[in-house]
Amino acid sequence: MLETLDLDKHLSKKEFKNLFEKCQARLGSLQREFRDHGIPVILIFEGLGASGKGRLINDLLLCWDPRGFTYNYVKLSPEEKDRYPMLYHYGIRTPAKGRISVFGRCWYREILDRGVEKGLDEKFFRDGVEMAGSFERQLAAGGALILKFFLHIDKKEQKKKLKEREKDPESAWSVTDYDWHQNRNYSKYEQVLEKIFQETDSEYAPWIIVEATDWKFATCKVLSTVQKAMEDRLSRKAGPLPEPVLPLHGSMASSVLDSLDLKKDLGKNAYKIELQKYQELLHSLELDIFHKEIPVIALFEGIDAAGKGGAIKRLAQCLYPRNYEVVAVGAPNEWELNHHYLWRFWKEAPARRQIKIFDRSWYGRVLVERVENLATTEEWKRAYREINEMEENLARFGTVIVKFWLQVDRNEQLGRFEARKEDPDKEWKLTDDDWRNREKWDQYMEAAREMLFRTSTTYAPWTIVEANSKQYARIKVLKTVCEAVKKALG
Amino acid sequence: MLETLDLDKHLSKKEFKNLFEKCQARLGSLQREFRDHGIPVILIFEGLGASGKGRLINDLLLCWDPRGFTYNYVKLSPEEKDRYPMLYHYGIRTPAKGRISVFGRCWYREILDRGVEKGLDEKFFRDGVEMAGSFERQLAAGGALILKFFLHIDKKEQKKKLKEREKDPESAWSVTDYDWHQNRNYSKYEQVLEKIFQETDSEYAPWIIVEATDWKFATCKVLSTVQKAMEDRLSRKAGPLPEPVLPLHGSMASSVLDSLDLKKDLGKNAYKIELQKYQELLHSLELDIFHKEIPVIALFEGIDAAGKGGAIKRLAQCLYPRNYEVVAVGAPNEWELNHHYLWRFWKEAPARRQIKIFDRSWYGRVLVERVENLATTEEWKRAYREINEMEENLARFGTVIVKFWLQVDRNEQLGRFEARKEDPDKEWKLTDDDWRNREKWDQYMEAAREMLFRTSTTYAPWTIVEANSKQYARIKVLKTVCEAVKKALG
Repeated sequence: MLETLDLDKHLSKKEFKNLFEKCQARLGSLQREFRDHGIPVILIFEGLGASGKGRLINDLLLCWDPRGFTYNYVKLSPEEKDRYPMLYHYGIRTPAKGRISVFGRCWYREILDRGVEKGLDEKFFRDGVEMAGSFERQLAAGGALILKFFLHIDKKEQKKKLKEREKDPESAWSVTDYDWHQNRNYSKYEQVLEKIFQETDSEYAPWIIVEATDWKFATCKVLSTVQKAMEDRLSRKAGPLPEPVLPLHGSMASSVLDSLDLKKDLGKNAYKIELQKYQELLHSLELDIFHKEIPVIALFEGIDAAGKGGAIKRLAQCLYPRNYEVVAVGAPNEWELNHHYLWRFWKEAPARRQIKIFDRSWYGRVLVERVENLATTEEWKRAYREINEMEENLARFGTVIVKFWLQVDRNEQLGRFEARKEDPDKEWKLTDDDWRNREKWDQYMEAAREMLFRTSTTYAPWTIVEANSKQYARIKVLKTVCEAVKKALG
Repeated sequence: MLETLDLDKHLSKKEFKNLFEKCQARLGSLQREFRDHGIPVILIFEGLGASGKGRLINDLLLCWDPRGFTYNYVKLSPEEKDRYPMLYHYGIRTPAKGRISVFGRCWYREILDRGVEKGLDEKFFRDGVEMAGSFERQLAAGGALILKFFLHIDKKEQKKKLKEREKDPESAWSVTDYDWHQNRNYSKYEQVLEKIFQETDSEYAPWIIVEATDWKFATCKVLSTVQKAMEDRLSRKAGPLPEPVLPLHGSMASSVLDSLDLKKDLGKNAYKIELQKYQELLHSLELDIFHKEIPVIALFEGIDAAGKGGAIKRLAQCLYPRNYEVVAVGAPNEWELNHHYLWRFWKEAPARRQIKIFDRSWYGRVLVERVENLATTEEWKRAYREINEMEENLARFGTVIVKFWLQVDRNEQLGRFEARKEDPDKEWKLTDDDWRNREKWDQYMEAAREMLFRTSTTYAPWTIVEANSKQYARIKVLKTVCEAVKKALG
C-alpha cells in the first residue's frame, strides 16, 4: 500500500505560496461556518519521526481562530496511562459541537507501538484496532467530521532527515532513540501500519496518506483535503454517516421482567444478619480490589421510588470514602448536550482501585430519552450497540461491571409516593415529574424490557432485583456485588 | 495548643445515636437550602494516621445527596504533582455555587510534610502557608463557607490504634510506613501543626480541632459544627467575609499610558529582518524552556483592534504546536459563572515546559467587567490583590509571566474598524460590541491606567506596547518575550 506512493511529489515555492494562501483564507471562513452549523471536527495526524508533523500542524492551526480548536498532544506517563482505560484519555478530548480537535498523538500511536513490539495477534493490538473502529463510528454517527492523516516518508528519507536534524544544534534535541528505533525497524512499522490502515479505514473516518518528502507539497495536500472535506460536508448538510446498524424489532412481547416474584421478602432479623454479613464481606473485598487495582462499576436503574438510593447507601456505608464515588446522573446540562451523549460517561470511567456507583446512568438514552422523545428513534436504537461497545471496552481494561434493574409494581410505587408526600424529610424527593412518569408506566416497562434484552452481555450482565421489599433488594444487591468482585479476583 | 485538649471526651452509644440521627436529617435539609442559595461549601479534614478520618468522612457524606457534593482525596504521583503549581491541583477542585467540596487530603498535607522534612523556615513551607492564606481568603470573599477540621489523637493513642489495625487482617493494609514515621516524629509533627494552625486560622476559614480518641464524640462534634456553621450562615445571609483590603483611590490622574510615543514605527525591510531574527531566537530558546522545564505565560490585553491577534500569530508561528497553546478568553459561560471568577484561569495554569498565550485574560475583571458593571465595585477593587497573589503563586512555581498592553489611539482604532468593514475575510472580526466599547474609550483608558499601576509587579511586570504600527508592536512583543525567557534561564 505505502510502497505504491510517488514520494517525489513536490511544489515550487511559488506554487506553494499561491495554494497555501488560498486555502488559509478559506479554512478560516469554513471554521466559522462549521461553528454556526454545530459540526464537530476531529483531525488526526500520525507519521514516523521526522516526517514533519509539527511544522505542518502549526501551519494548519494558524489558519484558525484559537477560540474554536484544541490541539491535543496526549503524552502520558506509563503510570497515568494505565490508570484509566484508553477510551477515557481520548473520549474526554473529543470536540463539542462546532469545535475542532486536532490530535498530534492519539490512540493509533499506542496501537502502533504495541503492534510493533508484540505482533499483530496480541490482545492489546487487536482490542485497540477494534476500539478505534467502534469509537470513530460512534463519533461519526454523532455528527463529527473525521479525517486521519498519515505523513509518509521512506526509510532512506527518514534517515537523511534524522541526520540533518541531529547536525543542527537547534533541532538535535528533537531526535530521540525512539526515532532511530523506528528507522531501524522501518519495515516492521510499515507492516503494522498497513494492517492498521486496512482495518480502520472507513468512509466516515478515512485515512489520507500524505507524501511528505517535500513539506510544501504535504502542507498543501493536507490543507486542501481538509478544505474539500469541510466543503463537501456543508454542501450535503450531513455526514458520510456510518450505515445504521439498528435492531430489527422495536417491541418485546414478553420478558423475564413480567414473571418476577415481587413478593420475595426478608424478615427484619434475617435482614440485619445478612446486611452485616455482606457489608463485612464487601469491606474485606475492598482490600483485594485495592491491591489488585481493579476498577468497579455498580450501576442502578429502575423507575422512580424503586429504592435505588437506599440500596446505594447500604453499599457505600461499608466502603472507604477515598475508594468509592457515587455519581448521580440527571438530565445533561448545556455543556454536556454539546458533546456526544456518551462524553459525560467516558469522563466518569473508574480509575484502577476505584468503585464508581451510578445512580442512573448512560441507560437514560434508551429509557427516559426514548420514552420522552428526547432522542430520535434512530439515536436510541443505535445506542444499544454503542453502549455495549463502551462497556466491552471498559471490561477489557479489567473493569468489573454490575448492573441492577430494581423492579417494583405499580401499587408499591404508589404507596411509596404517598409516604414521601407525608414525610417532611422525604417530601423533596417527590416531584411532578415522578407523577408524570408514572402515567407512562407501560412505555417505561417496554423500554426496560428491550434494554435488558439488548444490553445484557457476558462482560456486563444485568441483575434484575425484585424490589417490593427494600430489605430483600438491598441484600440481593450487596450479595451480587460481592460475588462479581470475587469472581473477578479469581 | 494541642496539649490543652481533653482527649478523653467520649459519648455513650445511646447519646451518639440520638445526636447523630438528629444532625443527619438536619444536614440533609441544609444541603438543599445551600443549593437554593447558591453558597459553596469547602470542608477540609486533616489528622495524623489512624485518627479515624475515613470513617468519619463517610458518616458525614452519607447525610447528603451525592448529586450535591464531591469528595476529593488528592493523591498525585510526585511527577504529576510537580507538573503544575499547587494552586492548579486544588483550584480546579473548588466547588461551584451551591455545591459542597470535601477534602480528605489537601494543600495542608503537602505543607505539613514539607515542614516536618525541611523545617519551618524553608521556602516551600513559607510559600505554602502564605498561599493557603490568600487562597482561602479569596474563596471566602467569593462567598464560600470554609471549615477546616483537624482530628487529634495523642502519640500514645495513635500507637495503640496503629497496632490494633495491624493486628486485624482486614485493616492491616491501611497502616503504612508513613503512619509509623508520624508516630516516631510525633512531636515534630505537632510543632509544625501548631505553626500551621497559628498562621492559617481565620474567622472566615477557621480550624476546628476535634478530640478524636472516641470516634462517636468526634463524629458528633464534626456533624454538629458543620450544622451550626451552615445555620449561622443562612441566618445572616452572608459570610464572615474577609475584611476588604481595597485600594484607596479609584481614579488615576496620569500614567505612562498618556505619554506614549505612538508614532514609533519600523520600515518594511527592518521589520522583515527583525522578525526573522527574533523568531529564530525564540525558536532556539524553546529548546531551553523544554529542557529546563519552565512554564511560560504570555498575556495580551488591549482595546479592540489593537493588534493582539497579529502579534500572537507572529509569536506562535515559530513554536512547536505541542509546546504552546493559545487561550482565547471571552465572556465566562454559565458553568464558569458558577465558580470563583479565577477558577477558569486556575485551570489554565501552564504545566512545566508549556507556553500559554492568553488572548485577553483574568484582567477582564478590572477592565470590561469594571467598565460594563459586570462586577461590583467591591469585586473589581478586590481583584487587584487577588490577581497579584495568583501571579505570585505561579511565579514562585517558576512560571515566567510576560504581560502586554497594546495601545493604539482612537484614530488608529477607527481606521482599523473601517478596514475590517471593507474586507470580507475580516468583516466577522468586527461586532456591534466593538463600536459600543469605542464609545467608552475614556472609561477603558482609566481602567487600563489603574490596572497597569496596581498589577505591575517584579514577578509579573507589564510591558506597554506602542501599537499604532503593527510591525513595531510585533517586534517589541517578540523581543520582550525572548528577553524574559533569557533572564529566567539565567
